[in-house]
Amino acid sequence: MIIIGEKLNGFIPSVGKAIRARDEAFLINLAKHQEEAGADYLDVCAAVDSEAEAETLLWLARLAESASSLPLCIDSPNPDVLSAVLPQCKRAGIVNSVSMESGKIETIFPLIANSDWKVIALTCSNSGVPESAEGRLDLFEQIRAKAAEYGIAENRLLIDPIVHTLSTDAQSLATFSACAKEIRSRSKGAHVVSGLSNISFGLPARPVINHAFLVLAMYAGMDAAIMDVLDREMVGLLHATNALLGEDEYCMDYITAFREGRIGAKKD
Amino acid sequence: MIIIGEKLNGFIPSVGKAIRARDEAFLINLAKHQEEAGADYLDVCAAVDSEAEAETLLWLARLAESASSLPLCIDSPNPDVLSAVLPQCKRAGIVNSVSMESGKIETIFPLIANSDWKVIALTCSNSGVPESAEGRLDLFEQIRAKAAEYGIAENRLLIDPIVHTLSTDAQSLATFSACAKEIRSRSKGAHVVSGLSNISFGLPARPVINHAFLVLAMYAGMDAAIMDVLDREMVGLLHATNALLGEDEYCMDYITAFREGRIGAKKD
Repeated sequence: MIIIGEKLNGFIPSVGKAIRARDEAFLINLAKHQEEAGADYLDVCAAVDSEAEAETLLWLARLAESASSLPLCIDSPNPDVLSAVLPQCKRAGIVNSVSMESGKIETIFPLIANSDWKVIALTCSNSGVPESAEGRLDLFEQIRAKAAEYGIAENRLLIDPIVHTLSTDAQSLATFSACAKEIRSRSKGAHVVSGLSNISFGLPARPVINHAFLVLAMYAGMDAAIMDVLDREMVGLLHATNALLGEDEYCMDYITAFREGRIGAKKD
Repeated sequence: MIIIGEKLNGFIPSVGKAIRARDEAFLINLAKHQEEAGADYLDVCAAVDSEAEAETLLWLARLAESASSLPLCIDSPNPDVLSAVLPQCKRAGIVNSVSMESGKIETIFPLIANSDWKVIALTCSNSGVPESAEGRLDLFEQIRAKAAEYGIAENRLLIDPIVHTLSTDAQSLATFSACAKEIRSRSKGAHVVSGLSNISFGLPARPVINHAFLVLAMYAGMDAAIMDVLDREMVGLLHATNALLGEDEYCMDYITAFREGRIGAKKD
């Protein structure tokens, strides 16, 4: 599993406040804690007005790189912001995100073609996210064809089939799972990723919904997640599910995570 | 989902102590709390030396019935103990358990034939638990044939395909899931049940493994569980999984469980 820590995101109110105040200590702390908790990448998202976004995101990315040894997941809806920031990163990470919306792939793929950068690609286009799994899989095939065109190996693609919120779409998990299974079966290399928390939008006790979704999505083939790596139950479930799916011989990863204090009830 | 509260069990050290001391207040408390937390049945297991088991189990069953309005799940490995206790219960509940081990079905099925009692049946015989799903499904068919012989409707059968501990059997979930899917597909009525916690025996942070197992086992078709209903994360996952599987329209059960304070972070 590829774990992308979600905390350095200006859409989280306390983090947005820290970004606006340039509160380095607060943000460095979040970066360090996510690394200790087992993140493989740190998502960085400035979420400020478009005028200043590139500048702020670059500042945040440099701060995260100074605080941790992890590669970053550079996160903006604006491909021009992404292309301004990512050439300045120390280590190749993940570009978050492209899609079949016009201009996104055309801006980002040439930039990462001859590099080690991975890319998150959403199954949406100018017409939005298709309701059906079939429609989303069509978009996956289009993204895949574009990647081939630019010489980007499939193992550098993290496909996000997008989850609708469960409160308005009872088929949300079923559609996501169908996409995940099919993507993993059609491609040896492509990963399936999700920003887990959309599933619980509008519902109470959201972490519980996110926890159950993580387990079921992993079963369906999701092998990367943008998630709250500081949520110990979430990280525990991730390791437990890996073991239950037979992907952790003698539960050694699970036991190591426990010994290192990353899962289970917190010891004071 | 049929939720069977597991706490009134003498194998839990604090409960065993309370049973030996006839500490009614402690045990009444456990019964009441499990009812409030959403249990449908209360498992009662005396777990004392064989001489006194029937007498102690009857005492415990009567205490549980006085403390709650729930039917009981009368739990003993000894069919003679079961048949001594269950005719004295106020309400028809669940007999836990029978199997294809000699004498068990022959003792219990005649007793419950013309009643509303349900029965947990384990897929094991005098030769133990078969390694393969196929072997366990053969035993399911034998149990089913016996039930038909005694006129016991299939919706009164709760089949436990038995989970091996994950630490020694990486295929444990896969075997259980294969059994659960096949039982639910072969029979319109039969339920699939599990005592969840065997899966985590010998591993650290056991509740986390049990949580992930609950979610994946429900996905495979398990629709009853003997579980720690006082574990709020567990109950939350159960409701969340039901909703994710499309079995809770508009998440109304989930939202009700939250409003009634049964799931989510506990309010002080």
